[in-house]
Amino acid sequence: MNNDSSSRIVARLKDRISTSAPGSRLPSTRSLVNEFQASPVTVQKALQTLTMQGLIESRPGVGTFVRAVRTARPSDYGWQSAALGSPRAVLPTTSSTMRSVSNEAISFHSGYPDRELLPERLVQAALARAARGDAALSRPPVAGLPELQSWFARELGAVTPAGINPPTPSDVIVLPGSQSGLSSIFSALVGRGQPLLIESPTYWGAILAARNAGVRLVPVPSGPDGPDPAELARAFEETGARMFYAQPHFANPTGAQWSPERGSQVLDVVRDHGAFLVEDDWAHDFGITTTPAPIAARDDSGHVIYLRSLTKSVSPAIRIAAVIARGPARERILADRGAETMYVSGVLQAAALDVVTQPGWQTHLRNLRHQLQTRRDLLIGSIREHAPLAHIESVPKGGLNLWLRLPDGTNLERLTNECESAGVIIAAGNEWFPAEPTGPFVRLNYSGANPGAYPQGARVLGQALTQNHR
Amino acid sequence: MNNDSSSRIVARLKDRISTSAPGSRLPSTRSLVNEFQASPVTVQKALQTLTMQGLIESRPGVGTFVRAVRTARPSDYGWQSAALGSPRAVLPTTSSTMRSVSNEAISFHSGYPDRELLPERLVQAALARAARGDAALSRPPVAGLPELQSWFARELGAVTPAGINPPTPSDVIVLPGSQSGLSSIFSALVGRGQPLLIESPTYWGAILAARNAGVRLVPVPSGPDGPDPAELARAFEETGARMFYAQPHFANPTGAQWSPERGSQVLDVVRDHGAFLVEDDWAHDFGITTTPAPIAARDDSGHVIYLRSLTKSVSPAIRIAAVIARGPARERILADRGAETMYVSGVLQAAALDVVTQPGWQTHLRNLRHQLQTRRDLLIGSIREHAPLAHIESVPKGGLNLWLRLPDGTNLERLTNECESAGVIIAAGNEWFPAEPTGPFVRLNYSGANPGAYPQGARVLGQALTQNHR
Repeated sequence: MNNDSSSRIVARLKDRISTSAPGSRLPSTRSLVNEFQASPVTVQKALQTLTMQGLIESRPGVGTFVRAVRTARPSDYGWQSAALGSPRAVLPTTSSTMRSVSNEAISFHSGYPDRELLPERLVQAALARAARGDAALSRPPVAGLPELQSWFARELGAVTPAGINPPTPSDVIVLPGSQSGLSSIFSALVGRGQPLLIESPTYWGAILAARNAGVRLVPVPSGPDGPDPAELARAFEETGARMFYAQPHFANPTGAQWSPERGSQVLDVVRDHGAFLVEDDWAHDFGITTTPAPIAARDDSGHVIYLRSLTKSVSPAIRIAAVIARGPARERILADRGAETMYVSGVLQAAALDVVTQPGWQTHLRNLRHQLQTRRDLLIGSIREHAPLAHIESVPKGGLNLWLRLPDGTNLERLTNECESAGVIIAAGNEWFPAEPTGPFVRLNYSGANPGAYPQGARVLGQALTQNHR
Repeated sequence: MNNDSSSRIVARLKDRISTSAPGSRLPSTRSLVNEFQASPVTVQKALQTLTMQGLIESRPGVGTFVRAVRTARPSDYGWQSAALGSPRAVLPTTSSTMRSVSNEAISFHSGYPDRELLPERLVQAALARAARGDAALSRPPVAGLPELQSWFARELGAVTPAGINPPTPSDVIVLPGSQSGLSSIFSALVGRGQPLLIESPTYWGAILAARNAGVRLVPVPSGPDGPDPAELARAFEETGARMFYAQPHFANPTGAQWSPERGSQVLDVVRDHGAFLVEDDWAHDFGITTTPAPIAARDDSGHVIYLRSLTKSVSPAIRIAAVIARGPARERILADRGAETMYVSGVLQAAALDVVTQPGWQTHLRNLRHQLQTRRDLLIGSIREHAPLAHIESVPKGGLNLWLRLPDGTNLERLTNECESAGVIIAAGNEWFPAEPTGPFVRLNYSGANPGAYPQGARVLGQALTQNHR
């Protein structure tokens, strides 16, 4: 037996294995004996070595094969840090509101309505129809299916007062969710390093999109009635910003609803500063005691960029939204969308249009309104009874969230951990602040699973709060 | 009759109309007479004025209504130009390859396979099943449906040689189309103003995504065998770039297929420069006489970022692709995807997985291979016979495109216009060059509708070329 000879065979076979697919068969021992002009024992020894190294496996009576499952060796991707340099911003890969948790938990954290609040049958029927239709195998235009563009334009046009030009279908760009719209608006219209005025607190997804676009966030405090117009004007003047992002209807997280007068005042300030108002009408379908009247309907001068999403009200799987904008701003958003995704799946667009044009959709929205009211009131009652230390800033007239101010000095991390260990998942308010949080807040979403558990959830929160302030 | 009184009524009603929804009813003439203390004739005159101004309409016997369709007045969005400043780059909203043209035209321009090349029944059945399943009403994780991540990882793992760690499902990020992946890779890993090496010519969508991300494009010439490794090394050294974007298999537009040796050489150069290779395997399912062997399978050190799309082979409506990457690079891409779209529709992911795991998918791919071969050969034969002035640079072993070098001095604009007026749509090659085109080229796509018309299309091209060089 020649050790050198065996090593030589090992080396040659390793070369061969390195370019072979896993599972491919090695020549028989007999062929290898011939090929390498070595003894069967030497060949066997080489094969044993390769087997021990995890590179091949023999199946008795069948043959010897390149191993499919290889022994993992530790990888070091350190070189990438040098190649990539510092990240542009420390970005969370996801928010706590996107967490999936056990079904047994009482979930107040999620931002997405529970399945029982979705128009399940309409969605399934619409997707089934879309599957049979042309949309399943064709490619729609970059700006969207013309019929869906028309639907979005008509919805806003229906509340446009006389004397104002209603939007046309060509003002509409269909989006694969409003998050994509935020990204495009911030990167195509504001740009890296430039200031963006943003309500504080506000939707964490908007903060995330803005940070990812590298814009400079300038918080504008916003209470239950919306931002103070004088404060907004000062912020425009001090920063030279040309855009203000806001949720005038059932703002996430505060539930704030601007009065029509406040809307007009803000629009005037925006116009006076030659700026844009990004009106994120995320909860258009979630009115409880009022219905949102978009500010965009009162503007035909291109100052309002209107975002309308169907994702949360139709289905998270039908990820469809629209941006309505006019003038060069619309062209720049469209160019960014084209470069980013080229077009939005026609199946999703067709299914979304199908759902919202069914008579059952209006029935669904009416039922939804009642369900949200019941859930909201049950949660408020539970908090007032079982967690009196939590202050309800205002009773939201719509939307999905209750915003609670906690006593000064509350340790939010400890509180959320204590609640979680008792099976209640709440979202600390910090994520909704573009800068430092202005106090200890939590957001409770009342559209999750199992509203019957709200009293129990409130009890757990109340106990954790009491312990926190003992 | 008092003219002043009529004007006063007009003014008051205009105020009221400006805050009314279109279609809402005005009070009766009788009520207005009472309200304004005016004569019926004066009120009628005021209503006529408003009718002529297009603000109201009367429906005899029904009433008077705020007009739904208002006379458009010209809008001036000039203020936006001041607010927006210069665009980051002059971006086309779309490529000529995305144009929709009349069904009668002979289309060589589109980048998307004709419906007859798609697995129509598999797609419809998959979407119908997805419509009934959980995916229709739920939200998948940011990185994708775990089963689909596994499928993409297994596909690449199956050709990973022994001794290399195959990718794991958690290395996979599911994308809403590979264009989104390109955008994220260029903006999260290269960044504004930084150099990116890119094959020339190459896919216009990659050029578009890179320009939109603001990266600095550095063209690396690439022929039928891929780029010259020495040239690539020089480009890395001269620019300090840390990334090279390429399509090693059936490159769009040239059809180039790198040999395994060329792949290894390029990978060595990339590794030597501590850089990334973005391997865009766009035509993985479109092999004709060979099957792509991804370079990514030979790398487990995080140097290759692998893009694999299903959009073109499954259906343009099932806009699903994946990026497979390891290390910090993968985390940065994921963070950018999270900020950009949060997640990809579960219906599309479930349907895509359904299609590619059906036994019929393999049958479809085999048939597709034959159809592409027939179409390619028919087109090549037609060009050789009827347009001999067009030089076929190389016969593609896969993909969807034939790349033709035209005689020096060809006026591409005149040529494409002449062909179009004769009903033949071709794409001028200029769009595929990241810098100046290196000559007059056209790209003919052989996956469009009506391959029977190829001889006629070639005849039209041949005549236009002859006229161009008479």
